[in-house]
Order: sequence, then structure tokens, then C-alpha cells
Amino acid sequence: MENPPALWHKRGKPAVRAIETAELLAQPDDAYSMKKRIILLGSTGSIGDSTLDVVRNLSAELEVTALVAGGNWKKLLEQAREFRPSVVGCGHEDAATAFEEAFAKAPWDPAPRVYGGASDLVRLVQNTEAEIVLGAISGSAGLPAVLAGIETGKDIALANKEALVMAGSIVMRRAKELGRKILPVDSEHSAIFQSAHAGRQTEIRRVVLTASGGPFRTWSRAEMESVTPEQALRHPTWDMGAKITIDSATLMNKALEIIEARWLFDLPPEQIKVVVHPQSIIHSLVEFVDGSTICQLGPPDMKVPIQYALTYPERHPLPGTEISLPDVGQLNFEAPDLERFPSLRLAYECLEHGGSAATVLNAANEVAVPLFLQGKLPFLRIFEMLESVLESHKVEPDPDLDAIFEADRWARQEARAFLAEARG
Amino acid sequence: MENPPALWHKRGKPAVRAIETAELLAQPDDAYSMKKRIILLGSTGSIGDSTLDVVRNLSAELEVTALVAGGNWKKLLEQAREFRPSVVGCGHEDAATAFEEAFAKAPWDPAPRVYGGASDLVRLVQNTEAEIVLGAISGSAGLPAVLAGIETGKDIALANKEALVMAGSIVMRRAKELGRKILPVDSEHSAIFQSAHAGRQTEIRRVVLTASGGPFRTWSRAEMESVTPEQALRHPTWDMGAKITIDSATLMNKALEIIEARWLFDLPPEQIKVVVHPQSIIHSLVEFVDGSTICQLGPPDMKVPIQYALTYPERHPLPGTEISLPDVGQLNFEAPDLERFPSLRLAYECLEHGGSAATVLNAANEVAVPLFLQGKLPFLRIFEMLESVLESHKVEPDPDLDAIFEADRWARQEARAFLAEARG
Repeated sequence: MENPPALWHKRGKPAVRAIETAELLAQPDDAYSMKKRIILLGSTGSIGDSTLDVVRNLSAELEVTALVAGGNWKKLLEQAREFRPSVVGCGHEDAATAFEEAFAKAPWDPAPRVYGGASDLVRLVQNTEAEIVLGAISGSAGLPAVLAGIETGKDIALANKEALVMAGSIVMRRAKELGRKILPVDSEHSAIFQSAHAGRQTEIRRVVLTASGGPFRTWSRAEMESVTPEQALRHPTWDMGAKITIDSATLMNKALEIIEARWLFDLPPEQIKVVVHPQSIIHSLVEFVDGSTICQLGPPDMKVPIQYALTYPERHPLPGTEISLPDVGQLNFEAPDLERFPSLRLAYECLEHGGSAATVLNAANEVAVPLFLQGKLPFLRIFEMLESVLESHKVEPDPDLDAIFEADRWARQEARAFLAEARG
Repeated sequence: MENPPALWHKRGKPAVRAIETAELLAQPDDAYSMKKRIILLGSTGSIGDSTLDVVRNLSAELEVTALVAGGNWKKLLEQAREFRPSVVGCGHEDAATAFEEAFAKAPWDPAPRVYGGASDLVRLVQNTEAEIVLGAISGSAGLPAVLAGIETGKDIALANKEALVMAGSIVMRRAKELGRKILPVDSEHSAIFQSAHAGRQTEIRRVVLTASGGPFRTWSRAEMESVTPEQALRHPTWDMGAKITIDSATLMNKALEIIEARWLFDLPPEQIKVVVHPQSIIHSLVEFVDGSTICQLGPPDMKVPIQYALTYPERHPLPGTEISLPDVGQLNFEAPDLERFPSLRLAYECLEHGGSAATVLNAANEVAVPLFLQGKLPFLRIFEMLESVLESHKVEPDPDLDAIFEADRWARQEARAFLAEARG
């Protein structure tokens, strides 16, 4: 507990007998308050779409000052035409070129400045004035841009959980040193963050991440032998990208979230638990030492945590988000099955080893998922690949960023070697 | 919303662009901080027992400076011998005399000062130094003592919901004017209070009180015709006193809680809803305008909200309060049946009429419950009695305390007349 996370909100401990005077009314809106400027990293993905919906709905409060995509320059062009950011970026150099050519045919004024290529994304974040970076580039690619945001005085709304899985200690330390907030966008971590407002970090007994359990929650291990990519892509409650949907089917998503929670909330692994909750209505819970558990629930709609992260500490109306508990009717809970889903165990092992272990788990998984989707790696072999790579890894106890990327590179190579060996 | 409740905690609205500096660590405990002194009104009842358990568990933080009971001087004597308050009080004059006689036979030093009789309770509260009054004298008898606590600069931990049902506007106005906190002890209102910390009062879309539904949740109206007191006293989830257990069976308890919530959280009636939740695990919910619903859940143990009210804003360990959602397994929700349980409708009607209406509903109910327990009033006739008394009441729109007690007296007389008429 010696390093409370930078997102922890300021609250001194009042003396027991302090006499409090009359409560203050909330201040009226500052008539002159400006819009919050957002750098949106990953605008053409699922989180990007939801973020732009939020900005459309709150155009008096929020504006997009930079839109960054990977290779989908056509969608980026449409988005840029609507939101008129001052800057756009493409992770792929050739997509940037295609964007500029298409823009030239039907330009608008002022033209956005265009950045292209992965290293340029860091410069984009550094050079663009904004209050907050929404980091939704999945995988390890988003980490340098997130760090660049922190270093240049921006708060981070973090959907890119790999940034914390790979480099949680570095990201949180720099955020704390520079007084920046890391605001969770993952629905589970947003739920914990919101619920944690009912107490102090030192008063937390444990946090409980909810997991839908994925499409194979009730399958036997024998049935899981023959899972197809199509089956794994059918998530019961959330509509998300392919990588995260497979991660939900393997519960690797929850494993990464355990690691994310460890850094975001500065909690030791034994205070982080997982419960399977098939309806995905309760998004996660915080149990305090006095027996009160506070949780957040709501519709499975990413706009809710995205908007909360972007407008924090304020809340603004978000239409279509009413929830009726009598209509929901029933909420169920069960313990996760660590035999059929070893991912959670691997997460705790990584936290126990510390250092570069979580980076390696994440990198191996980033290799495993596309191989599974391509039919080259059976479903249950994903776990074997992860376990094998982790086992052969020599943990670097206190890695710097270079060491983290080296561990990442090593793990990918090792994962591919595992496959070659298995097939050869 | 023009009158935010005194319990609402101070929070200005930050400008959107405010740059926040590095977060502060929680301050260490003040080594010299003194114990919080408690005046416990209603020490020999169910809430009193739980409160003394809390004080036993937190003897370094809390101390009982006054113990007040009704007529049970024997139990009061035992409690006084253990907790050594400087003051004791008995609502019944003869119980005070009996206490003093028994004390003289086996005294301790220093002897507690003894107050006796209802009007003396007000003087007891006025003359006893304390930080907080825990008001757990059920019914209208507790109101003057609660007001005396506010007037003499004490915070109130309020278990006595009748104080707000009868005189909510007066109690909350005086608390606000004098800068005192009214901290809810009812599990539902404590849940709302805790959950509300995740946002601002103006950001609340609605609050949802949970109701177990009582023992007759699934009974038909025909079956309810012949309910016996024994059946009504079997509450499915909470172990409480007789009056509140019958109120749970009629849902009058929830009706009074709607009125209590209206004053405690300064919310209009249309923002206060009820959902039936038979397991009583989720104690109530706050839905914010952005679609996030925050709720508090925990074991059905009154020590949890009592301790929270007494130690607020701190949380201290409370053993035996762990909750395992996989063990709970399932939570259910259904809409309340206003046909079989007209109590909720009566509550909303009282809030619509305002003024003395809620006082009258509460007073008529305080007459009805003992009559039902004595077998003199059939279960469903309780609702008829309440409705009849309310219908013949001429609402006093802005009553002072005298007018409230006059409405209370009138309603009791009217309720007894209803019975006499029905039998005659």
C-alpha cells in the first residue's frame, strides 16, 4: 500500500472530533469552462466508435482534437470529416499516405495535420495539446503512446489494458510522479474505481472482478477440445473486437484484468478475486473491511465507462442507459473453474513472479490468439503455449522499458517456436 | 434540489481544465485523537444490542456516554455495568426508580446520573456532552430527543425513521442550519448514502429501495385475509423487533422508508423507487444520470450500517461480515405488487399531499400494528384503517412541531375510532 495509485482521489483523514460546518452547495457550472480535448488512440475500433458516440452526445463538454487509427484510413477519413480534429494519425505509414490522397480529393479547411507510422504516434501525442488521451490501441503497440501522454502532462483514459499488464509499475510510477490520472475504461475497473469512492484505499478488504464466463462456461473439458473460432467469437453479453472476444473465451481477458487491477488500484494479488457472473450486469465489486460491498451495475454498454472516464469527476446524462432490475429478474454468481480455465492461475503466478512475467504472458497470448483464429492452434493448446513460454522465461525483476520490449519480443519468438515444435 | 441534505458531503465542482497535482497520501492516524462519544437512545432494543456490539469491537474509537432505555431497567443495568456511561435514562419514570434502587444494592464508582420520564430524555440529550446521538427509540417518542441532539450540536445516527417521517422538513432544515449530519442507520438508507459517494446529488437519476417483500410476498390476496400475528412475525431475512417486523409484512416499513429517503436525500418522490429483492443482499441502489448504478450489498447484519454511521467517514474492520457471492448464488428482483400491498401507494400519496399527511399515516400505523398483534384487527384491515384515517385528514401544509404532534394525536384517535366503528 506504500504507493497509492495516481487515480486515488485526494482525501485526508479528518480528526474524529472535527466539527464540520454547514455543507457547501455544489458550485454552478463555470459559464466559461472550455471543452475537454481528447486524443483518441484507436478511433476505428469498437472502443473508438463508442467514444465518438459519447463525444457526439456531449459536444458541449468534449471535443476530439486527434483521431488515430491503425490501417483503416477510409473509416478514419469519415470520422475526421465529422469531428474535424486538428490532427490525425495512422499506425501504418501507407494508410497515412492513402488518407492524404483521399483527403486531397475532397478537402476541408483547416486540413488536419497527418502523422504516419508507429514512432510518429508518440510524436503526435507529444505535440498535440489535449487534456486527456483515450488509449484504445489494443496490444503492446499502445504502450509508448500512453507513456508519451503521461510525460507531456495529459491524463489517460485507459482501455488498452496491455499498457498496465506490460509496464504497470512504470506507467503508474510516472503518473504519480507527474500528478496525472489513469482513469480506467475497462468496465470492470471502472466499476471498481466508481465503487471505491465509498471509502479509502486502505479500507478495502478485496476487489472482486466479475467475469461473464465466456461462451464455454458450461462446457466440459472434453467438449472444449474441439472449440472452433466461430464458437469462440460468440460472446454471450458483450459485442467487442475479435482479440478481446477470444480472450474472454479463454478467460485470458480476466487474467489480464487481474494484473491491470493490481497496478491501477495498488492492491496485492491476494486482495483481487474473480467471480463468474453470466449476466454481466454487475461489472465488479469492492468489499470494504467493515463488510460493506459496493458495486457498479448497468447495461453492457462501453459508453458508460468511457463517458465516466472522459468526464470524471462529473457525470452527464447518457440516454438509453436505464436499467430495470425487475426486467433483469435474476443475477447469478459462481466460482471460476481454474481447471478448465488455467488463465487466472497464470495471472496470479505472474504477479507472484513480478517483473517481466506479465509482459511475457501477454505477448505469448498475442501470438496465440491469431494462431487460434487461423485454425493453427487448438483452443486448449493456447493454455499450453502460455504455460510453456512462461516456464522457460527467466524473469527480469525490475525491467526498464527496453527490457520490457525485449521480454515481449522474446516471448513472441518463444511462442512461435512452441507452435513450430508442436507441428514439427 | 434547492435544499441539499446536511449529510451531503462537501464537494465543489472543479473546472474542467483544472490541473491536479500529485495525489496526497492518506494522513496517518492522529495519535491523540479521542474517542467518539455516543448517546444511545434505545439501548435495550435490537438496534441497541447491535450498537453495543459495535462499541465492544471498536472500544479504541467509540465510547457510550449515555444509555437510554424505555422500561427494561434490568437490561439497562447490565449494559451500564459493562459500559459505564456517565448518564443513563429510562423513558418510564418508575423504571428509573427501579434502576436506582437496584444500582444502590450493587453500586460502582462513579455512579451514573439517572434521568427518568419522557421529557427528561430531552434534558438528558441537551445536558450530555457527546459527538453523536444514535436515535433508536422507535415510534414518535424519539423525535424530541433527536431534535434536542441537533439543537445542542450533535450529529445524529438515525435508526428512528419516524423522526423523518413525522417531521422530515423540520429535522433536515435544523440539521442544515446548524451544520449537523444526519447519518442513516436503516440498511436501505445507509446503502444509498454509501453508494451516493460515487457521484453528486444532482447527478442522481433515481434511488431504488430494496424490499424483501416480507413473508407474504407470494401469498394471494385471499390467503392474506387470514394472516395470523405469528405468521406475520416470521420475517424471511432480518431479525428485528415486533413493530418493524409487522411493518415489513405490510410493506409499511418500505412506505416509511420512501418518506425517509425523500427527506434524507432531498429527492422528489418520482426519483424514489422500490424493487422487491427477496434475498435482502443488495440493500439499495443509486442510479446516476449516466447509466451507472451503484449499490451496497452485504450480510443482513445491522452492525454494518450502525458502525458506518458511527465511524463515518472512516471504515473500520468488522469481523464476520465477509460475503461470498458464489455461496449466495442468486439474486432475484421483481416489481412490488401495489394491489396486495397498498402501503407504497399511500406513501407516495402522503408525499404528494405533503405537510402533516405522513405524520398521520405513521401515527395510524402505530395504532394499527399493536391492534393486529392483539388479534383485534385483521391483517388486510390495517390498510383500510390507514386509508380511512388519511382520507378524513385535513392536511396542514406547513406544520410546526406542535401541529405535528397534534396531527399525530388526532390520527391515533381517528384510528381507534375506526376500530370502534368497525366492531360496533
